[in-house]
Amino acid sequence: MIESLANKILNSEKTAVARGISLVENESTNAGELLKMLYKNTGKAYLIGITGPPGAGKSTITNALTKILRQNGKKVGIIAVDPTSPFTGGALLGDRIRMQDSGTDDDVFIRSMATRGSLGGLSKKAKEACDILDASGKDFIIIETVGVGQSELDIAQTADTTIVVLVPESGDAVQTMKAGLMEIGDIFVINKSDREGSEALGVALRTMLHLKMTKQSDREIPVIKTIATGNKGINELYDFIIRHKEYLEKKGKLEQKRKANLIKQINVLVNNKLEHKFWTAEKKVKLDDKIQKISEREISPYDFVDELFLET
Amino acid sequence: MIESLANKILNSEKTAVARGISLVENESTNAGELLKMLYKNTGKAYLIGITGPPGAGKSTITNALTKILRQNGKKVGIIAVDPTSPFTGGALLGDRIRMQDSGTDDDVFIRSMATRGSLGGLSKKAKEACDILDASGKDFIIIETVGVGQSELDIAQTADTTIVVLVPESGDAVQTMKAGLMEIGDIFVINKSDREGSEALGVALRTMLHLKMTKQSDREIPVIKTIATGNKGINELYDFIIRHKEYLEKKGKLEQKRKANLIKQINVLVNNKLEHKFWTAEKKVKLDDKIQKISEREISPYDFVDELFLET
Repeated sequence: MIESLANKILNSEKTAVARGISLVENESTNAGELLKMLYKNTGKAYLIGITGPPGAGKSTITNALTKILRQNGKKVGIIAVDPTSPFTGGALLGDRIRMQDSGTDDDVFIRSMATRGSLGGLSKKAKEACDILDASGKDFIIIETVGVGQSELDIAQTADTTIVVLVPESGDAVQTMKAGLMEIGDIFVINKSDREGSEALGVALRTMLHLKMTKQSDREIPVIKTIATGNKGINELYDFIIRHKEYLEKKGKLEQKRKANLIKQINVLVNNKLEHKFWTAEKKVKLDDKIQKISEREISPYDFVDELFLET
Repeated sequence: MIESLANKILNSEKTAVARGISLVENESTNAGELLKMLYKNTGKAYLIGITGPPGAGKSTITNALTKILRQNGKKVGIIAVDPTSPFTGGALLGDRIRMQDSGTDDDVFIRSMATRGSLGGLSKKAKEACDILDASGKDFIIIETVGVGQSELDIAQTADTTIVVLVPESGDAVQTMKAGLMEIGDIFVINKSDREGSEALGVALRTMLHLKMTKQSDREIPVIKTIATGNKGINELYDFIIRHKEYLEKKGKLEQKRKANLIKQINVLVNNKLEHKFWTAEKKVKLDDKIQKISEREISPYDFVDELFLET
């Protein structure tokens, strides 16, 4: 059954790809087997991460970029990571709204993934969803993440090219730096650049990036102005993505970057498995028994954990 | 040596508290022993989390709130979580700038912690730093987190009362919801409320919070307007914190919340220990050996991890 699903994914069948991603998202026991089967067919797609503060226009840029990629004959997969809301029980601005533009195109696959529960879980699932899209023959995969925190940054960093989208209103350059975005961008976009403050943000960004460049890199990090709703600057953005891709490939940096990401992925797999094996029914009962005493400061959580390990 | 440090911390000696937090931050082998010794003296401090998008004025609110707490005779600890920057090699807007107002006050302790490396690591360290401040006799501990991502939300949620600070410019209410902030706030603050758009944000927030309340809670979540630089609304904010504290204590919800957090903390401790034990020198060598083959798609990372576990 999983083999037949794998074959359908390799054949680029949309419903099979959707089912595969659902298996991954629901942490189905079959997901591992599926990913093993598909793995040798991955590594061909180029991954673009798009991140930035809420309201910067990331979805609009993703859509505009998808159009250009399609015009260039490229097949596109999109993973949009949205935090879970108790109101909808799932992803906000879900697939339906997003599909309007390209939903009828067979060579575009769009999927929203919601953040549910555990730290780190989402970046694992997002990566695995990318592997499925990759195996299905997509040439480019765009991972769009809402928010600017550590998990989101981790997701953005699994990409080959990471684009940070800012708007004049999203705070000044120092705020951007504080949010950890300066470190991860391969390309910076000032969207809604017809608004006040865009010049000043551009100057400040370039100054800080120049500082960074002289310290760390042999490549100038571009700052591009766009008005995504009017499709302005998107061609330029596309050109810079392709240039960055060529830069990484020529210098052997793409392989290096992907190897580092593989090591991270292996660590996450190991941790998940360790955790799963450790928490036997017996240990869970023990935790239930002792939590009251820990809460009352009779035992410290550190001593309790030591105790759990003594039995392993 | 650690015992003497623990005693000095219990005596509220500032330099000892600073050293204790450094042990935690550097993951010193002594940190565990110290935390074990201090644990029975924790649980007395009340934890306030302050979070929100960059530029919302969280630091200003923290400072203003600290003043009121001091006027009420309360001892205050502050943990400010800042992302690491390669420019400074440490926390931005570090301790020195922040100390200006209350640096000479012996009953205020301020510490910036930087986000270094591993996912989840920071919330563990922030929690442990809070335990040290708690044991040192602080009545209130404020944890201030920059950013709006999953790790930051996790940190904010370890607090007893979580305050979400927004500004009219930080995007509309839907953006706030997308960033995952609607779910975690016990109190919402619209700072810089003299600016345009503050009314509209307030109305939208109240509408959404009302929806949430009818579904999930027996308590109305307040939305407070402040102008922190002018000290406006801060007294009201303080009153609402105290009211929320009383609400939690009266209904037994504080104990319940803290127990849930303890369980999370235990999980993190277990995971750290498992990871540390698993990666023997031998396994690390194996990873080095195989990464090339995994990178060339000869072996999948999933099969490789299975192989690692066979030997355990």
